[in-house]
Amino acid sequence: MIDIAFLGTGGNMPMPERFLSSLLISYKGRKILIDCGEGTQVSMRMLKWGFKSIDIILITHGHGDHVLGLPGLLSTIGNSERKSPITIIGPKGIEDIVRGLTVPIQGIPYELHVIEAGQRDFFVDFNKEGVEFREDILDSGYFDLRISTIELDHSVPCIGYSIYVPRNPKFSVYKAYSYKVPKVLWKTLQNGKSVIYEGKLYHPGMVLEGERRGIKISYITDTRPVDAIMPFIQGSDVFICEGTYGDEKDYEKAVKNKHMTFSEAAYLACNGDAKQLILTHFSPSLNNPEEYLKNARNIFKNSYIAYDRLIKNINFE
Amino acid sequence: MIDIAFLGTGGNMPMPERFLSSLLISYKGRKILIDCGEGTQVSMRMLKWGFKSIDIILITHGHGDHVLGLPGLLSTIGNSERKSPITIIGPKGIEDIVRGLTVPIQGIPYELHVIEAGQRDFFVDFNKEGVEFREDILDSGYFDLRISTIELDHSVPCIGYSIYVPRNPKFSVYKAYSYKVPKVLWKTLQNGKSVIYEGKLYHPGMVLEGERRGIKISYITDTRPVDAIMPFIQGSDVFICEGTYGDEKDYEKAVKNKHMTFSEAAYLACNGDAKQLILTHFSPSLNNPEEYLKNARNIFKNSYIAYDRLIKNINFE
Repeated sequence: MIDIAFLGTGGNMPMPERFLSSLLISYKGRKILIDCGEGTQVSMRMLKWGFKSIDIILITHGHGDHVLGLPGLLSTIGNSERKSPITIIGPKGIEDIVRGLTVPIQGIPYELHVIEAGQRDFFVDFNKEGVEFREDILDSGYFDLRISTIELDHSVPCIGYSIYVPRNPKFSVYKAYSYKVPKVLWKTLQNGKSVIYEGKLYHPGMVLEGERRGIKISYITDTRPVDAIMPFIQGSDVFICEGTYGDEKDYEKAVKNKHMTFSEAAYLACNGDAKQLILTHFSPSLNNPEEYLKNARNIFKNSYIAYDRLIKNINFE
Repeated sequence: MIDIAFLGTGGNMPMPERFLSSLLISYKGRKILIDCGEGTQVSMRMLKWGFKSIDIILITHGHGDHVLGLPGLLSTIGNSERKSPITIIGPKGIEDIVRGLTVPIQGIPYELHVIEAGQRDFFVDFNKEGVEFREDILDSGYFDLRISTIELDHSVPCIGYSIYVPRNPKFSVYKAYSYKVPKVLWKTLQNGKSVIYEGKLYHPGMVLEGERRGIKISYITDTRPVDAIMPFIQGSDVFICEGTYGDEKDYEKAVKNKHMTFSEAAYLACNGDAKQLILTHFSPSLNNPEEYLKNARNIFKNSYIAYDRLIKNINFE
């Protein structure tokens, strides 16, 4: 249903054997990218999922290893003849950064919308050419996905993301007949819209079964562990979290540099009831992250190490 | 004497199997970089010549494939604890580009000097920490190298470079005695400085033999062939030139996109009396440039194809 690909899994600076941490999410033919360090577009080319259908770029923070690939990628997307706008979301300061980085690539053939976000939800609808950000979700049918942000604790303003893809409720002919819903309204109500018809209000609950569990993906980097992360990632199918340091001996470095160890990420996964934890954003000094996986698994069993171009398919239950 | 390394040899966009065209020049322990596309720092890390001693960055023009690696590289140089300034030279517009690209990397621990150059010479002296750009070369001794620029013909302001390393003339005891130069002045005169001593002017020519041939490296990309290139590259030991297209069938593309074919570059090498031509800046569509090398060799025999991390050592004759 949703495909995700780790374009890179490194932190700090791009290394010959590891791209900088970045995630590509593909759903219904549209794509969302999280973070874009130097070289992200090269890994994307190796992945072969294409450039043209990237509609949203979520930036966690303005450090070079998370943003410096933006102008190159935006330029390459321009070469793909994309015409519809791209939305970049990031923390306070991201507008200035994008404005600066795009000085050498003036004239890309699409609009760039930049949104500075603190803690909020975005509701997104898909269309053939791209996406639309919905202002109001009250009684306006079902959205295609919800993007939520949380403020984190790093050395610069930094936000984490969760992406929620709702699963539409099943249509119930039984309920429709029970509530005497005219057939002409069925489709509208199934699409989540209420209708007044012949003086009477009909609402979607009259034709739909109870809500079904959707898919939730959370992405948290770079930060110290903060309590608010746990409710934010609650029940994530995939919780992607920075594990800059694997070795417990690097705890003080993690505190000083505002990062996390594997065990700290695992603690969040455990207490946030995540289904699985995938660690990423490894320090350049961490040559073999697998070596320290046990530090995470001791705390949260379903812990895994990401690697460049690891692909996961996530389906509705 | 001088070592050069091709960090990348591609044009347009970074590809998985080829970095973007960029050259690193190492001389007397100091380094000059020409162009810096996305990923240049990664190739530099593979090369293992270090980051700290890069003093000058020469930018040919402001297209993404030649500048977008700057902020990442400057940030990585910052991590190497460099304190002395770095000078960036480029065509008109480079100041705005550098100002924009460095928005995310404020706080690098050294100064950045940016010079917009048209057609001119820079005389550079080396010191232990870095380099100095000399304002005046008249009677001020020998310079360590001269950087010359030429305006090219591309779709945006673009300049080519030549680097000349002079070879100091031999000291002649015979001449020193002939001119009755007091021994106390020998060293000063040998260093190229004139002196007035006991009312009499002594100049370097009184102790030095005739000038000896130095080393000249020329770097021309991106451009159509223009006549002025031939005198500019005159007698280059190594003439590095763009060969975006190998196949003669791509001549019209070369004209349209303001680039060159292999044979056009070879014509310049031949008429500029270069000792050897090294082709670089290959189009992403040019998978195997060697296939078209004959198109250059038919015109200029000493033509070669560059590849990523090709290293050449160039010595005084």
